[in-house]
Order: sequence, then C-alpha cells, then structure tokens
Amino acid sequence: MNLHDEIRLMGDRALEASWKLATLTTRRKNDALRAMAVALDARRAPMRDANERDLAAGRAAGLSAAMLDRLELTDARIDGMIRGLREIAELPDPVGRCIGRRRRPNGLVIVKRRVPIGVVVIVYESRPNVTADAAALCIKAGNAVILRGGKEALNSNLAIAMALAEGGQAAGLPEHAVQIVGTTDREAVRELVRMDDRVDVVIPRGGESLIRAVVEQSRVPVIKHYKGVCHVYVDAGADLEMALRIVENAKCQRPAVCNAMETLLVHADAAPRFVPMLAEMCARRGVEVRADEAARALAPAFKPADEADWYAEYLDLILALRIVPDVRAAIAHINRYGSRHSDAIVTSDSAAARAFTREVDSAAVYVNASTRFTDGGEFGMGAEMGISTDKLHARGPMGLEELTTYKYIVQGDGQVRA
Amino acid sequence: MNLHDEIRLMGDRALEASWKLATLTTRRKNDALRAMAVALDARRAPMRDANERDLAAGRAAGLSAAMLDRLELTDARIDGMIRGLREIAELPDPVGRCIGRRRRPNGLVIVKRRVPIGVVVIVYESRPNVTADAAALCIKAGNAVILRGGKEALNSNLAIAMALAEGGQAAGLPEHAVQIVGTTDREAVRELVRMDDRVDVVIPRGGESLIRAVVEQSRVPVIKHYKGVCHVYVDAGADLEMALRIVENAKCQRPAVCNAMETLLVHADAAPRFVPMLAEMCARRGVEVRADEAARALAPAFKPADEADWYAEYLDLILALRIVPDVRAAIAHINRYGSRHSDAIVTSDSAAARAFTREVDSAAVYVNASTRFTDGGEFGMGAEMGISTDKLHARGPMGLEELTTYKYIVQGDGQVRA
Repeated sequence: MNLHDEIRLMGDRALEASWKLATLTTRRKNDALRAMAVALDARRAPMRDANERDLAAGRAAGLSAAMLDRLELTDARIDGMIRGLREIAELPDPVGRCIGRRRRPNGLVIVKRRVPIGVVVIVYESRPNVTADAAALCIKAGNAVILRGGKEALNSNLAIAMALAEGGQAAGLPEHAVQIVGTTDREAVRELVRMDDRVDVVIPRGGESLIRAVVEQSRVPVIKHYKGVCHVYVDAGADLEMALRIVENAKCQRPAVCNAMETLLVHADAAPRFVPMLAEMCARRGVEVRADEAARALAPAFKPADEADWYAEYLDLILALRIVPDVRAAIAHINRYGSRHSDAIVTSDSAAARAFTREVDSAAVYVNASTRFTDGGEFGMGAEMGISTDKLHARGPMGLEELTTYKYIVQGDGQVRA
Repeated sequence: MNLHDEIRLMGDRALEASWKLATLTTRRKNDALRAMAVALDARRAPMRDANERDLAAGRAAGLSAAMLDRLELTDARIDGMIRGLREIAELPDPVGRCIGRRRRPNGLVIVKRRVPIGVVVIVYESRPNVTADAAALCIKAGNAVILRGGKEALNSNLAIAMALAEGGQAAGLPEHAVQIVGTTDREAVRELVRMDDRVDVVIPRGGESLIRAVVEQSRVPVIKHYKGVCHVYVDAGADLEMALRIVENAKCQRPAVCNAMETLLVHADAAPRFVPMLAEMCARRGVEVRADEAARALAPAFKPADEADWYAEYLDLILALRIVPDVRAAIAHINRYGSRHSDAIVTSDSAAARAFTREVDSAAVYVNASTRFTDGGEFGMGAEMGISTDKLHARGPMGLEELTTYKYIVQGDGQVRA
C-alpha cells in the first residue's frame, strides 16, 4: 500500500472509532484510561528498550545533549505518564453537558450539547511522553486520535502506543481509538492534514517551523501557537517591590517556556527608581538586558536593543527593555509586537488596569501577577493539550472542554416551516 | 501600489480599526448601525444607479436570469437591508459577557470574558445585500470587516459600502471598520487569506468551488459549509401523516437552500405503507425520485438511484430514496454520505430518537421536525452570518456570539509561580 492509501486507511479507521468513542460512558472511558496506565506500568521494559534504540540512533546522528535529554524515557518520566493518565481519569467529563436550551414559540425545544470533536491529529516533536498525555486527553473527550511524533522518537512512541492500545482495548476502547503513524516519511504529515473528510482538527506541538509547515499544507482546521512573546508592563505608581518579584519570576523561573516574559515595558515615571533595581536583579540572575536609549541612560551596562528585539522570543535569560510614556503606549507596543499569548500589568491604578485588560489583545491578560500562570493546571483545567494563540475555538490553555464541540438537538412534534 | 501592498494596507487599517471597535460601548455600536440604516435610505439613488451599471454589464456578459435576479437591488431589497441593520441594533451584545470565573487557591481570580474576534474577512458571491448584512453583524460583535464580493456586483457593493461608511463614521465608528476590496483581481482573495498576521478569520459564502479555493489558499482559519446533504429518516412505527408533512416541507418548501432534504431514508417496516403515500405527494409536487431497488419495487415510477445520488446536493425538486433495515443503518448512511449539516428522524420510539440524536454526527439533529429550521432566525439568534458544518468554533447557524472569542483576565496581588 502506498503512503497516500495507508494514511487514508488510518483516517477511515479513526473516523469509525470516533463514532464508537462518542457513545462511550464516562465510566467506560475512565476505566480505559486506568487500564492504559496499568499497561504502561507493565511494559516498562519494552518501552525502555525501544527508547534505548532511539537514544543510540540519536547519539550516532549527533543530537544535542538537550535533545537527547528530551528524548530519554526515564522511569520518572514513565511514572509521570502513568500519573497523567490517572489524573485525566479523575477529571470531569465535558461530553454530554447541556450548554444552552431554548424553547421556540412554535414549540421546538433546541438543546445545545457538548460532543466530542471527532478525529484529532497531533503532530509533535521529540518528547515521547506527549504520546500518552495527548492520547489520554483525546480519549477522555471522546475523540479518536492519530499521533505523529518526531522521527528520532519513533521506536519509543510506537512502544508507548502499543501499551496504550493493549490496555485500552482490553477495557473496551474501540480498536483504532489511538493510532500512531509508523513511518518517518515527511509526506505523511501532508497527507494527514489534507484529509479534511476524515480529520476534524490538527494540533501541532513544537517549534515555529513545524507549526508553519502544518498551517501551510493543511486543509483541516489547525489550533496552534507560534510563539510566546510575553510582556510585563510596570506602571507609574506600581508597587516596585512587587513589580520586581513578578519580573524576576516571569523572566527567570523557567525562561525556556512560552509563558516566560521576553519584553519588559516600564513607565517613564517609574523608570528612575525601577531600572536600577532591575539592573541589580538581572546582574544577580545572569540576565542579559537589551534596552532602548532611555533605559540605557539609567543603566549603562545594558546592551542596546534594536527593532528585532521587540519581536524576539529568546526563551533564554535575555530581556528586552523599553521605557514608555504611558499605559496607552504599553498597550500599543504589546498589540504591535506581541504574540497574543500572555501579558501583565503591575499597577495600583484601577483605570490603567482596566484599560490594559480591555485593550491588550492577548489570550491571557494579568493584573499584578506573573505571566507564568498561563497553563491548564494553573488555570484549574486539570491538564492541557497546549496553549492556543489563535482566536477561534480555543484561546489560551486547551483543556478537555476545548477538545469538544457541540451539536444542536431539536425536539419537535411535527413542526414544519411556514 | 501593487496588489500585495494594497491588501496589506487594508489589513493594517482593519487591525487598527478592530482595536478601537473592541472598546466601543453597545450604545455607540447600535447608534452607528442605525445611522448606517439612515444612510442607506438616503442613498438609494446612487445605489440604484451603481446597480444598474452592474445589471447592464451582467446582461452584456450573458448572465443567467437567476443570476441577474440575485444581483438586482430593488427597493424592497434595500428596505430589507435597512430593516436588517435596525434588527441587529436591537439584538443583545455578546461582547463583555462573563462566561466563566474561577478563584484559584493562590488567590488569583480568573475571569473568562467574551471579546470581539478582531478582523473578519468575508468572501461572497453575487447578492449585494450581503454587504450590509455581513458588515452589520461584524460591527455589532465589535469586529472590523473586509468584504470581497463577486465581481459582477462590484459597483453595487461599493455604493452600499460607501453609504455604510458615511453613516457609521458620522456616528463615531472608526474609519476603516468596514472596508471593501475595490478590485476584481482574483489574486486579491489569495492575498487576503494568507495575511494571517492581520486577519483572524475568513468566512466564505457561496458555492462549493469558491469555498474550496479559499480553504486551499488560506493560512487564516476558515469557517464554512461546503454543502447541505440533509436527510429525513422515517422510522418503523412513525406517525406516517406527520412523516409525510415533514418530508414534503423539507424537500419542497424551498428546495434550493442548504437545509432542504436531499435524501429520504425509510425503515423497511414502514415502507410498504409510506412509499405509496410518498409517490403520490412527489407526483403532485413534481418531485423526481431516485430510489434503490427495494423502493422501486413499491413505486415503479421512481428512477433508479446510484451511489452518486447518496452524495448529491440537488438543490432542486429531486429526492434520493433508500429503504434501510433499522435506525442503525440510517445513522450509518447519514454519517457516511451526509454533510454534517441537518438530519431528522420521524419516530414514536424514544430509544430510536435517542440513538439518532446521539450518533448522527451533524450540526443539528431533529426529532419529529423539518430540517428547514436550521437557521439563525429560527434558532432564536436573531440574525445569522451563515451556517457552519465545521466542528471548530462555530457549528450550525452562526449568530453574533459566534463572531466573538474570549480572553482570560487574571487579577492578582503579586502572585508569582513557585
């Protein structure tokens, strides 16, 4: 069978499985998730073996230490997958929930009810634990899933998927509820995302180039986030001790993640006191600051920033810094250069807070808190599939609810349209 | 300026306008809509003149009578646009509504609030009244809109847009809240839908080929419906008089629209009584029936159906007919051949109704009512932008709420992540 037919067969099977999954009770789905956890626990040895083969191939191919680390399936990471499956089994099931009800003058009763999306394709990069986490979220929301991981993790992903399938099917999941693309051919992604008669949504998780390639090729709706260029704005009259704590946390606590701050904006009135405090903290924490002229006048050790720095997602201990005349200028900067992810104001002025939260066009807008809280767990969703900077369907952290859609169920007693 | 730069300039202006629109009060938006209605009324003469030029060009180009009819801007249709604007001004405003609120253990208060989507592009075909209807819905939901109508209606659309802009701006709308693409170059659509840094959603309205072309080229999320292959299933033991009324309405009341029935499925036990009743009605109403062997055995006048008929959207007085052994077979037929639009069961068996509404994977699923009710007005939304057969963001009729998204507003008092 050629690749085209092979992928379409996966699509047919996923569609068939999705219809069965949509009718499963919550209890059945939860039992299956717990059985998948048990199967992962029982199959540690083959998973570790498969991972060893991936690691050996990765070392031979000269993967960086960071990539090899992401690829490695330690016992602690297997424990994490098992815990993740069990936690998802505990979450409330969004499927079947009534989210709207109208009785029309002609007697029709229209109920809007949450249902699974159907068939979800996930394209991701090196971390094999995504295989279990993403599959579990999809199954809990009643969706069939087709997974396409990175080529360097193929053996690991196949071993995990085999364990999940074994556990799930023994507990009554349809046979093709979770499928994994078994080829490393890049063309497979293209075939998957053009199959709009069988696939309902594609969720790419990885670097910007992976995501752009998926968007470019896809006929299927994509939910994504390209990057996180998050801002903190320190307003005039802000509590500067609080501002410094928030800035330090947003920049330094985990700089390589998408909700870390990349650019700091400071009101001109706060700058003379705040910039020296910032310079001290950045020197202490090893943060390189790239600043505009006004800020460099207050802290000559800062490097000069250029236009490209306002767009940059450093994912590192580097910070862009700009002095702005007022909250309006801060909002305009964020809407122009930002990535619509997460942005914060530190202020004691409720009018400034209101303007900022209304006008900053981002998924999550914070008042007096770190941008680092944009996360399904921190938002109380329990687990997340990722973060969307799109505005359609899902914005911000995507939990179980965002993996569902709805349908209208209309009850009549013979109504016809006049 | 070349086309690429021209379209990008429209995008910049729309984005700028969208930020202003997002902060307008409901009253300001409603006043603008009413002022737009007044301006349409005041500019009937130039609109009729522009429409005359389009009609003359259309006649010269040999457009069909049906197309010329759709193109014509009669006084009654101008009245309809004016009424539409005033009705949309009366609808409740979804923007600003709180749709979720959580207080986290760390004290963060997370509010999920409806906000406008931002910049909406609408690509549509010949009816110039869409210009006013679509613009009004977008403005009410706080969005900037870029309209791209059919080339045969360009003068009419420009005249309508000029009236809307004049009325809207006098009432305080931002200058580029409503823009219309002034060229008939097809490349303009491509430029619009690839501008994913400025446009948030594309809504194509028209024939399947227009919509497929938009999906093929777009980097921006698309909300769409390709076609409406709607079904009615008459179950064993259904009230056959009711079934016949529903079938007649779903097929004949307005056969050219997407929520009209195309295929009728009849339970084998109901067929011996129902098919002759159907044959009589279809003969009386001039409906051509294309049926499977089992149905033709009961009504030899029916033509034979082939596989292509199960997929067909006739939009005409033609009906595909199939006898099925049970509700499961009906569900399987609909999920296989249908278009996920609107499907109905006529039954007196609540278990069959439950199976049908749970398992048919369509935007609207009816029990004992005509499929013709799938419509924003009939669903109580007041007005609609169209009907989506996608599953993401909007499914079924798209009203004002579906033209919004949400953001998370997080209030803290200095929280940082541990």
